[in-house]
Amino acid sequence: MSILITGVAGFIGCHLAKSLVNSGNTVLGVDNLSRGSIENLASINKHPNFRFKEVDVNDVDTLHHFVLKEHGSEPISEVWHLAANSDIPAGIENAQIDLRDTFMTTFNTLRVMKNLGVKKILFASSSAIYGNLGAQALTETTGPLMPISNYGAMKLASEAIISAATESDLDHAYIFRFPNVIGIPATHGVIRDFCLKLKIDASILNVLGNGTQQKGYLHVSELIDAMLYVREHSKERLNLFNLGTDDSGVTVRYIAEKTVEIVSPGATINFGSQDRGWVGDVPRFSYNIDRLRKLGWKPKLSSRQAIDQAIAEIACQEQTSS
Amino acid sequence: MSILITGVAGFIGCHLAKSLVNSGNTVLGVDNLSRGSIENLASINKHPNFRFKEVDVNDVDTLHHFVLKEHGSEPISEVWHLAANSDIPAGIENAQIDLRDTFMTTFNTLRVMKNLGVKKILFASSSAIYGNLGAQALTETTGPLMPISNYGAMKLASEAIISAATESDLDHAYIFRFPNVIGIPATHGVIRDFCLKLKIDASILNVLGNGTQQKGYLHVSELIDAMLYVREHSKERLNLFNLGTDDSGVTVRYIAEKTVEIVSPGATINFGSQDRGWVGDVPRFSYNIDRLRKLGWKPKLSSRQAIDQAIAEIACQEQTSS
Repeated sequence: MSILITGVAGFIGCHLAKSLVNSGNTVLGVDNLSRGSIENLASINKHPNFRFKEVDVNDVDTLHHFVLKEHGSEPISEVWHLAANSDIPAGIENAQIDLRDTFMTTFNTLRVMKNLGVKKILFASSSAIYGNLGAQALTETTGPLMPISNYGAMKLASEAIISAATESDLDHAYIFRFPNVIGIPATHGVIRDFCLKLKIDASILNVLGNGTQQKGYLHVSELIDAMLYVREHSKERLNLFNLGTDDSGVTVRYIAEKTVEIVSPGATINFGSQDRGWVGDVPRFSYNIDRLRKLGWKPKLSSRQAIDQAIAEIACQEQTSS
Repeated sequence: MSILITGVAGFIGCHLAKSLVNSGNTVLGVDNLSRGSIENLASINKHPNFRFKEVDVNDVDTLHHFVLKEHGSEPISEVWHLAANSDIPAGIENAQIDLRDTFMTTFNTLRVMKNLGVKKILFASSSAIYGNLGAQALTETTGPLMPISNYGAMKLASEAIISAATESDLDHAYIFRFPNVIGIPATHGVIRDFCLKLKIDASILNVLGNGTQQKGYLHVSELIDAMLYVREHSKERLNLFNLGTDDSGVTVRYIAEKTVEIVSPGATINFGSQDRGWVGDVPRFSYNIDRLRKLGWKPKLSSRQAIDQAIAEIACQEQTSS
């Protein structure tokens, strides 16, 4: 198959591209490299079945022509749309960021797909679409959907237009509601923040929030595995899945303590007073993944095991980076 | 109070403006007059407490300056955001229409409000955000929200960014999920379509769909009453309400037969074969309005009574129009 990935140079895009190329597909990847990095593609950039172009998805003409020129003998059969803003606080400060990078990228990806006649999309949505619903385990049918960040709002807006397009233009859509996904190459997130802070001052770790924020985490390797499994086994017109673990999650306090233990044993940890790290942070959430389990997939790592593994990986990444 | 209404010259905007002016408020109204009409404002356009300007809400600078110039001694205390595309099939053909008129108008209304420091929005959302969930009575917490038209998608997208803004910029937001709202001045909708068809050929009425589509209807007078009631009695930061009747609704067959009875007795009615009128039409829905009832508001007219009243009104409107 020929497959297009938007946001291919990001944290998840590069893993997905590698997996799809290694299983025999031709992969066209685009990224505007604003948050992704060409280094993330080092392991596949020379592969004969991988083609990369620096394109902003909102530049629909360039994207259209890249696909037409490069898809080779087989037209694109599916698009994995991952391109989005990943800096949630920045998007709260300036709503234009998530409008452009999280929503309009989806709108324009659908436009290009319609023009090219591509009938299948797989979309990286987010637990952020649920907003702050407290301690309840979130199912795919949970409502109301009241996001508390522009990132979450624009992910929900993206789901909505994909849903509408499934009624008219698309044959199949997959909406994956990601949890917090961890691993390397880490580009953002709490573990990387802690590692960077400890690199600057190994004796102290100042934590945003009081450490009680508690969320589920999924390792990126498991996320890729789950998405490919769902694509293979769920064949509805519109396939909506929470992807994640269904344990009670891990507190920020645990992550702070574990990071200190690995990176800088003995450092003092100072917690803030708020129950959240920043405006738009959802202080706690956990998923119900019964739908995913019924389809036959379950995570191998608990949230805590995933965190332990990711801390080791990210600590190593940050120690070796300049 | 000084109040801004976007989409003031539309079907619902003109009723709302009249009600707010008549209860002593100063009302600033804007409309791009693409679907609204200045004639809809005839009864209040000369009122000293009403000021109208033809502005597209997406022209944020002009909107900003109009508000600054006209709000008089009291700054705007709330914005009723009604401006939107009302031609759902047109928006399915061309996704740009609902992007621009249904979503970007909301995005830009929030921008202008932020710049002016206005902290309260009241928003006309829609049952279309629910998509096609079949026979279940829809509550405010029903999910998943999978709209089947770009109109529904962009209304959901608008809810999402209002929700996010409530976390950061706004003090209060009201999201009213409208049902099918009927009455005059009718600018669109099934009753008006039937009247126009019978005006062209009084002997025959061709109906889109098989007539089994069944939905709840609310008369515009009741809608205005419900919104003002909720504004007065619900003071959460984010107030989300289904507005409508909670009876089983009325079929298109009933509306066709009743319209023929009033407008052109004896005309032949031909039904189509599909269970919906057009792509993106939700064939049946009904609301659960327990939240509204608990707050103390209930409709005086059933869906059928509202339909009967609206048919009489619209038949008269169309007979007297040229």
